[in-house]
Amino acid sequence: MGELDVFFKPRSVAVIGASRNPERVGHVILKRLIEIGFPGRIYPVNPKADEILGLKCYPRVSDIPDDIDLAVIALRADLTPSALEEAAEKGAKGAIVVSGGFSEIGNEYLERELLEVAKKHGVRVIGPNCLGVFDPKDRIDTLFLPEEVIPRPRPGEVSIITQSGSLGSTLLTMIRKEGRGISKFVSYGNRLDVDEGDLILYLAEDDDTKVIAAYIEGVADGRKFMDSIRKASKRKPVVVLKGGRTSSGDRAVRSHTGSLAGRSDIFQAAVLQSGGILVSTLNEFVDVPVALATQPPMFGDRVAVLTNGGGFGILAVDALEMRGFRVTPPSEQLMRKLREMLPPYYPVGNPTDLTGDSTPEQFLETGLAFVESGEYDALFLIPLFGVPGMVPDKTERLLLELVERSNIPVVATTVPTTSEVEEVLHRMEKRGLPIYPTPERAAAALYGLRQYGRSVARSR
Amino acid sequence: MGELDVFFKPRSVAVIGASRNPERVGHVILKRLIEIGFPGRIYPVNPKADEILGLKCYPRVSDIPDDIDLAVIALRADLTPSALEEAAEKGAKGAIVVSGGFSEIGNEYLERELLEVAKKHGVRVIGPNCLGVFDPKDRIDTLFLPEEVIPRPRPGEVSIITQSGSLGSTLLTMIRKEGRGISKFVSYGNRLDVDEGDLILYLAEDDDTKVIAAYIEGVADGRKFMDSIRKASKRKPVVVLKGGRTSSGDRAVRSHTGSLAGRSDIFQAAVLQSGGILVSTLNEFVDVPVALATQPPMFGDRVAVLTNGGGFGILAVDALEMRGFRVTPPSEQLMRKLREMLPPYYPVGNPTDLTGDSTPEQFLETGLAFVESGEYDALFLIPLFGVPGMVPDKTERLLLELVERSNIPVVATTVPTTSEVEEVLHRMEKRGLPIYPTPERAAAALYGLRQYGRSVARSR
Repeated sequence: MGELDVFFKPRSVAVIGASRNPERVGHVILKRLIEIGFPGRIYPVNPKADEILGLKCYPRVSDIPDDIDLAVIALRADLTPSALEEAAEKGAKGAIVVSGGFSEIGNEYLERELLEVAKKHGVRVIGPNCLGVFDPKDRIDTLFLPEEVIPRPRPGEVSIITQSGSLGSTLLTMIRKEGRGISKFVSYGNRLDVDEGDLILYLAEDDDTKVIAAYIEGVADGRKFMDSIRKASKRKPVVVLKGGRTSSGDRAVRSHTGSLAGRSDIFQAAVLQSGGILVSTLNEFVDVPVALATQPPMFGDRVAVLTNGGGFGILAVDALEMRGFRVTPPSEQLMRKLREMLPPYYPVGNPTDLTGDSTPEQFLETGLAFVESGEYDALFLIPLFGVPGMVPDKTERLLLELVERSNIPVVATTVPTTSEVEEVLHRMEKRGLPIYPTPERAAAALYGLRQYGRSVARSR
Repeated sequence: MGELDVFFKPRSVAVIGASRNPERVGHVILKRLIEIGFPGRIYPVNPKADEILGLKCYPRVSDIPDDIDLAVIALRADLTPSALEEAAEKGAKGAIVVSGGFSEIGNEYLERELLEVAKKHGVRVIGPNCLGVFDPKDRIDTLFLPEEVIPRPRPGEVSIITQSGSLGSTLLTMIRKEGRGISKFVSYGNRLDVDEGDLILYLAEDDDTKVIAAYIEGVADGRKFMDSIRKASKRKPVVVLKGGRTSSGDRAVRSHTGSLAGRSDIFQAAVLQSGGILVSTLNEFVDVPVALATQPPMFGDRVAVLTNGGGFGILAVDALEMRGFRVTPPSEQLMRKLREMLPPYYPVGNPTDLTGDSTPEQFLETGLAFVESGEYDALFLIPLFGVPGMVPDKTERLLLELVERSNIPVVATTVPTTSEVEEVLHRMEKRGLPIYPTPERAAAALYGLRQYGRSVARSR
């Protein structure tokens, strides 16, 4: 069991600064732990309450009739060092300090005090000035954002770490809205103790995490960070979005985190060299990990496009070539095969257009012909609904069969015409076919698979 | 009244090939005309039915006891020339031939026959092999896609013309899904007669169209097309998405439309020179017109960013600078003013971060300070919800007031946390503030306003 396990699988949690007032951070955290069904014991701590949300409340941490594993501290900044001390004396191995009011507004001395206590007792600290952790599988949630305000995503295979809490909650909203899931989410704020390097190494060992995604403005320790990426990338993909890639962006980072970000181009080159995968937009940060979680790496540049909409297919080809992929024509042998299996009026080639008469069977058979030809490194599907043959249920079954039988990555783009189709798409994605709402986003996801392919090939 | 008015405001429509079978194109078109509340008379034509969907059915066009304005022809390709002849003899000024089976599968001779009839009688023809027109304000809809399959968007201010029908229906789905509206939609297919140049000139004169958006694979007549853009751009923005910008994309265009697209780079340069606005992704094709419909052109490169989420603000700055904008620091005078109006712990500058304590009032006052300083050419807002002060209703009112009082373009990006917030966002956008789900998409929309600013400045 890793040292940071205490943040995700504690047997007991003390919420120090629990509150009866539904507006207060210390109330929301307690409520979320109850709502999510936290499987361990929960001890609210507040000298002015006997009971909060049906749980017995303790005046001080020392009054808790048991050891605690994890302390979540939601107190005024100047009260946090003594609270951490008390928690440590009760056996806490970890503490999440959600309170703000530290170095981000010039109170560096409070962080020094907090760090001293932590070091003295060997307690690991996430924060301060952070949201903490959310893990729907282990059922822990210290985010002080009510579920009604920020609805949480389902359990999934991608873990996210983020320096910015507001960006983190925005990401959760996007992920939820797109029907996607999350394994572990950590907002680590001022990273007094636990930093991005620690978290990446921890997630590298975590069996529930298939892909790590990190939003980074600046790192505490550059060498440690790159080392963590190098080690983690040998086991699973690490996706990095660097905030502050431009000169004004860098200036904004310095004002946001108070720390020098360093030369962004050098940082990004180092991430690549360490085997990490770089993305540059919010959509890519969410989209690329979804592809990496289910698809194999991509080991070449040739993409086959299979569509049932001509114009959409053309935009996909443009998007792919803009990303440096090659949409190469099929060999004569493959052309013959395609012509034999499809009606004579279908435009075959690359792209192959299955037209408005398309059926899921044609997607499966033609897709397999592309895969089995050995002429392509990835398959790009555009199954548009809204034509009679594309019955959603059957499309789901046969496209998933295609993914199952393919030895190269498969990604898809389509626009959900109705809420029924949208549900089918979410289900398909969950079961293994990454699906994006535009050809450009699907091409960007494929580019992430290509980056990972390069990383894997290099480390062999 | 323009010659093409007959396609949008006919007094009567004959649906030639109307069908009792709900699966047939001729049924769906009739049903949609009834559902949308077409204000003129509708005459179904089918020799084998007395009545369809409650309307008296006529065996032949010549049996209709009245003149007709518009014929919608949904028959087998080889039957369309004689149907057009009959319609013309009944006074039809326009015909939409939705049927496929013409040049796209090698039957050029049928198109020649159709064109001969059209010229002989002076009937304008949209199609063949197209979806035809949709206009929710004038209440006409010839798209043979049931509303259950492709839900239609509300009336709006942007008109779209598209060569590709499948791309067109995808666009309608995207627009509807994002709560946006449409003025006129035309899928013109094989453009036997009415082409993109005719449509752009018509829409330039149309008071219900504030922005024209054209998806183009190849044009029938390059000079006519560029002339139409030059003329239209003097009155309103014309946004062009060229399918087939890359070498493989161009190959796909040739296979899709059967016509040579010509050098894409030359085409795009000509569009720009004619005052058109170029976009390169599906999202931009939908997003840029929304900004152009409500915001003034942008006449410089300086953008002020006002956010209540630090990380989101940094990604916005990156996205803006990647587009060539400058996120310049405020003057000392403006800095003093910002510091006076905001709490001391807010990071002011560009971006200014209103933090989790932000209120709509602060967005309004700070936004006005940026606008009134004269130091910026556009205002970029990031109002994240999910913090207590950002009450949706009040945010809506005050941000719209900010737009109202601003003399430079304002765009926003935020992520709808709940369906209530999503509705508020749709309403705000409808009332004048373009809102996008990612900073990158908002930056791309602003870039459209900048392109239009250059076009306007050049033509002065």
